[in-house]
Amino acid sequence: MIKPVDEKIILGIDPGTNIMGYGVIKVVGVKASIVAMGVIDLRKERDTYLKLGKIFERVTGIIDSFLPDEMAIEAPFFGKNVQSMLKLGRAQGVAMAAAIHHSVPITEYAPLKIKMAITGNGSASKEQVAAMLQRILNIDKDEMPRFMDATDALAAAYCHYLQMGIPHTDGKGSGRSWKEFVNSNPSKVSKRREPDKK
Amino acid sequence: MIKPVDEKIILGIDPGTNIMGYGVIKVVGVKASIVAMGVIDLRKERDTYLKLGKIFERVTGIIDSFLPDEMAIEAPFFGKNVQSMLKLGRAQGVAMAAAIHHSVPITEYAPLKIKMAITGNGSASKEQVAAMLQRILNIDKDEMPRFMDATDALAAAYCHYLQMGIPHTDGKGSGRSWKEFVNSNPSKVSKRREPDKK
Repeated sequence: MIKPVDEKIILGIDPGTNIMGYGVIKVVGVKASIVAMGVIDLRKERDTYLKLGKIFERVTGIIDSFLPDEMAIEAPFFGKNVQSMLKLGRAQGVAMAAAIHHSVPITEYAPLKIKMAITGNGSASKEQVAAMLQRILNIDKDEMPRFMDATDALAAAYCHYLQMGIPHTDGKGSGRSWKEFVNSNPSKVSKRREPDKK
Repeated sequence: MIKPVDEKIILGIDPGTNIMGYGVIKVVGVKASIVAMGVIDLRKERDTYLKLGKIFERVTGIIDSFLPDEMAIEAPFFGKNVQSMLKLGRAQGVAMAAAIHHSVPITEYAPLKIKMAITGNGSASKEQVAAMLQRILNIDKDEMPRFMDATDALAAAYCHYLQMGIPHTDGKGSGRSWKEFVNSNPSKVSKRREPDKK
């Protein structure tokens, strides 16, 4: 798959221990469009290692298919208890390892930040986030997923697109391409690139 | 590297977010001996993803070098707070992903269980565990590591060896080889094997 110079693929991941969502958007110039979204259902896998293995295998497969330039992860920093945070950390770690293994730079966003970026309201519901994405990305109603984990992942990808300096949010730099953004913000872009070349 | 049929390599990992320890033992028949131990120093890596990338890369390198048949991880189930457990979970997840990627089955042991298996005392100090391992595995004093994370990892590997039905602990099955153990305990052995063939 050969990608045009001015095209970027962003993979969003919402890593859960039961359902893991993913969403892929394509950015051409300053315009974003949806490529794919879906979920990895981990509920049937009762063995911890088979579960982690499935995450690694599926995320690797998604990366191989869409060749993302960037990965955005929804990452809560607080949880109910230490037990659930350890499990969540493992699931995140395995998904991150798949990205690291393919030299895909990772950026993580807190749920509040993603909701804020998409809807302007940090305490928006999953349904509100999904509805807003459907409108922004012009997604057919029949294509909307059954699990909100998929739209949550898509929201992480779209939030990353907004954060990369596209005009929507701050009004600055309208009409700038990715290339221009990269050239004018080398520190922002290079910081977490190619983590495994070290 | 061609291994004799009756030889098993066990990799022990003590995954920390600052220092990660590893220890490798070889089991021939019922006799265990040390192959290597050391640490991966993560303290200089301030970026989270470079840190996780280094874990993935180094654990992958260790697996490529020693071709372990099994991996044993020291895994605390409780921690100070949700924040530190999330970080620990990620480090564990990345190390596990390296094993899963190479189809190395994983078993985890609580610190108390490892200490109990090595010293007979669940609240033994790291120094006591190290001293006992030095004696059991006949390790030269000059070869003992500066960081206890390395001996902790070696302890995880040795604990796994003991758990696999070797005579030391329970007096049962003395003189049994791994092959016999596998044949007489198929459920124990096969449970977590080859997690990514699914």
